[in-house]
Amino acid sequence: MSNSLRIGLAGLGTVGIGVLKILETHADKILKATGRSIEVVGVHAREKGKDRGHDLSSYRWFDKPEDMAASKDIDVVVEVIGGDSGIAKELIENSLSAGKSVITANKALLAKHGVALAKLAEENDVSLNYEAAVAGGIPIIKSLREGFSANRIAAVYGILNGTCNYILSEMRMTGRDFDDVLAEAQEKGYAEADPTFDIDGIDAAHKLSILTTLAFGTKSDFGTLDITGIRRIGADDIAYAGELGYRIKLLGIARRVGDKIAQSLEPCLVPSESAMGGVEGVYNAVHVEGDFVGKAVLEGRGAGQGPTASAVLSDLIDIARGVRLPTFGVPVDVLENLQTAGDDDIVNEQYMHLRVLDQPGVIADVSAILKDYNISIESLLQRGRDPGQPVSVIIVTHDCSKAAIRAAIDKIAVLPAMVSAPTVLRIERM
Amino acid sequence: MSNSLRIGLAGLGTVGIGVLKILETHADKILKATGRSIEVVGVHAREKGKDRGHDLSSYRWFDKPEDMAASKDIDVVVEVIGGDSGIAKELIENSLSAGKSVITANKALLAKHGVALAKLAEENDVSLNYEAAVAGGIPIIKSLREGFSANRIAAVYGILNGTCNYILSEMRMTGRDFDDVLAEAQEKGYAEADPTFDIDGIDAAHKLSILTTLAFGTKSDFGTLDITGIRRIGADDIAYAGELGYRIKLLGIARRVGDKIAQSLEPCLVPSESAMGGVEGVYNAVHVEGDFVGKAVLEGRGAGQGPTASAVLSDLIDIARGVRLPTFGVPVDVLENLQTAGDDDIVNEQYMHLRVLDQPGVIADVSAILKDYNISIESLLQRGRDPGQPVSVIIVTHDCSKAAIRAAIDKIAVLPAMVSAPTVLRIERM
Repeated sequence: MSNSLRIGLAGLGTVGIGVLKILETHADKILKATGRSIEVVGVHAREKGKDRGHDLSSYRWFDKPEDMAASKDIDVVVEVIGGDSGIAKELIENSLSAGKSVITANKALLAKHGVALAKLAEENDVSLNYEAAVAGGIPIIKSLREGFSANRIAAVYGILNGTCNYILSEMRMTGRDFDDVLAEAQEKGYAEADPTFDIDGIDAAHKLSILTTLAFGTKSDFGTLDITGIRRIGADDIAYAGELGYRIKLLGIARRVGDKIAQSLEPCLVPSESAMGGVEGVYNAVHVEGDFVGKAVLEGRGAGQGPTASAVLSDLIDIARGVRLPTFGVPVDVLENLQTAGDDDIVNEQYMHLRVLDQPGVIADVSAILKDYNISIESLLQRGRDPGQPVSVIIVTHDCSKAAIRAAIDKIAVLPAMVSAPTVLRIERM
Repeated sequence: MSNSLRIGLAGLGTVGIGVLKILETHADKILKATGRSIEVVGVHAREKGKDRGHDLSSYRWFDKPEDMAASKDIDVVVEVIGGDSGIAKELIENSLSAGKSVITANKALLAKHGVALAKLAEENDVSLNYEAAVAGGIPIIKSLREGFSANRIAAVYGILNGTCNYILSEMRMTGRDFDDVLAEAQEKGYAEADPTFDIDGIDAAHKLSILTTLAFGTKSDFGTLDITGIRRIGADDIAYAGELGYRIKLLGIARRVGDKIAQSLEPCLVPSESAMGGVEGVYNAVHVEGDFVGKAVLEGRGAGQGPTASAVLSDLIDIARGVRLPTFGVPVDVLENLQTAGDDDIVNEQYMHLRVLDQPGVIADVSAILKDYNISIESLLQRGRDPGQPVSVIIVTHDCSKAAIRAAIDKIAVLPAMVSAPTVLRIERM
């Protein structure tokens, strides 16, 4: 009997081909590190004939993923098909049930069904690993599950989507508008033809949900997560933020507030000089705060063939070395059901950008509403434009609850002088 | 028979007490994560009676470390005594030989005897773990041994000593001199009464040596490492570097140059805007470049009770979970013997600070010497002082070899106009 670890690879897109490239390039290195070879028994993808720019002739082709899940020659199934239902979900369920370990990069599926799949892995005494699902090549899953495992985590947050970070960085550096930079990102391949999942924050929210479950040992209800993307960020917002000493980043944040967890996924202002403020382009970064370790930041490429395949391989090497750990760091039965913090519990400074008609009394009206909600103003900046044109009023508030700022904004938005909907962004000092 | 993991703790300084604090605080958390409790069977330190601010009455006291190594009740010995010989070394050797796993924070010992100790661990089928030995709470050992294990590492470098980074940060932010800031750091407890190990770079060099062995899978000869500390960095150097867009950081660098490894431990200029440039105060950061993962940076607290104990616990939790990996990622027998790159192979831009008498011909003499060694000047800045006082000449060169710059500096240093020894610092663009 062979001592090699025998894998089935489902999905032959960028990541799948990357996995084959590493296995071919570093076979000797992997053998030294694990004492075993990793052998690709077979592959599966939707279209067999497609040219993928990589020689696949030496691999057995599985027409049906269910045959891969059932194959007696396979120890581990690597799922890099994607999608939170259908083929990927069935393949993972079938593989786990058949006693095979599974490695997946599928954040959507894990965010929605991770706990049920972890349970299935436990019942079958196999691994369900997913380093590639969050922040690409950054070993954040391993760090939370192992490296920081002796800490009570107070917060985990980060820049979890490279497409959004690239767009925001480009907007800042060139002063161009969102639509313009998005179009360029699509041309360059940094954004998908349909960019919705990325720019509306859904992809980052999936990743945040996984981090929350792992960091706090709690079931995270993806359905209750409030998600705001970057579509409405203007070039002027980025410029005003810069003047105030901030950069705008799409942040996923999960933080203990008393005995509850506050989760959010929204563009925030972070200090330009902070570790998060300095993360530019397609890079991702995750910040962790633990009671003993203190603050730690991990930064690296969050997507792309090499980094994502590197993460898949680290999961494979763990399995080849005989390492099997609970999917979310603890058995599913001991995962807690921590409550979600309410809008009253989430307190931050806020940045508000109001576009108003230049007429007497506007500032008085706005400040009266803020006063009604006990929101005090830290600074106010009014920028004149050409006569008759709307002016921008930028307000930075002191700490106030999310509930208060929302209620105030609802009233401010309907003041007669408002030209368009106000932009409100949370300030995260880190 | 108990299912608990039974440990002996040798060393009851800051880190040892920190380990006890985490074990007491997070017993329940650790039980959930590992399915076992971790039980401290006994402790050892040099002085039994000393008040350590922590109740030790429930732990058995071992007067002799050899009794701990021999105890049949102990599965794992945690060595946080320190020192590259004597008690610590004997304890680790005896424990491994007796079939006990060992966790150590002892970088000096590992830098000098790591490979021999790893061999002993292998022969006895036990673990030798040392996450706490490098960069405190940052999971860099785990990341290199596991997270990035499918990569051929091109370079690993970082800020590995918090005391030096604190001093350099304070010097920059306050404009004060080295001696002044060191004295304050000693008062605050950020520097030892005898700071030699830290400020002369020896502590950081030990850590670099460990990272080199692990990252490149090669035996690292600590004896051949060229080490320069931060004693000679002037407040004026930090200011000039700032004007040029750089910060000065004590960097440990190990990089492949062809089929050799170039290692250095010296203060370098790094771009102020780079990830390394932004690491301030007692923080450490390690930068890794792999062929698939690309660039990744890990940043966190490099020392102190909490972070170091958190790292010790992550090693303990690995062992409690049944994870056993080769000490340096691969078995000792397959470690390579990569050659050390020579001074001709190491090419960088250089910063030179010459303190010269303000007399005609100095610049001509200096530039003639540089020309002789094929070193071209990128920029030159001369700062006048009061008449009759020496002036500072700051030269930034284009890329040149370490051999060339050393030879040139030997000649420049003896020019009659030189008032004191030139300061030469390597520029690392990252």
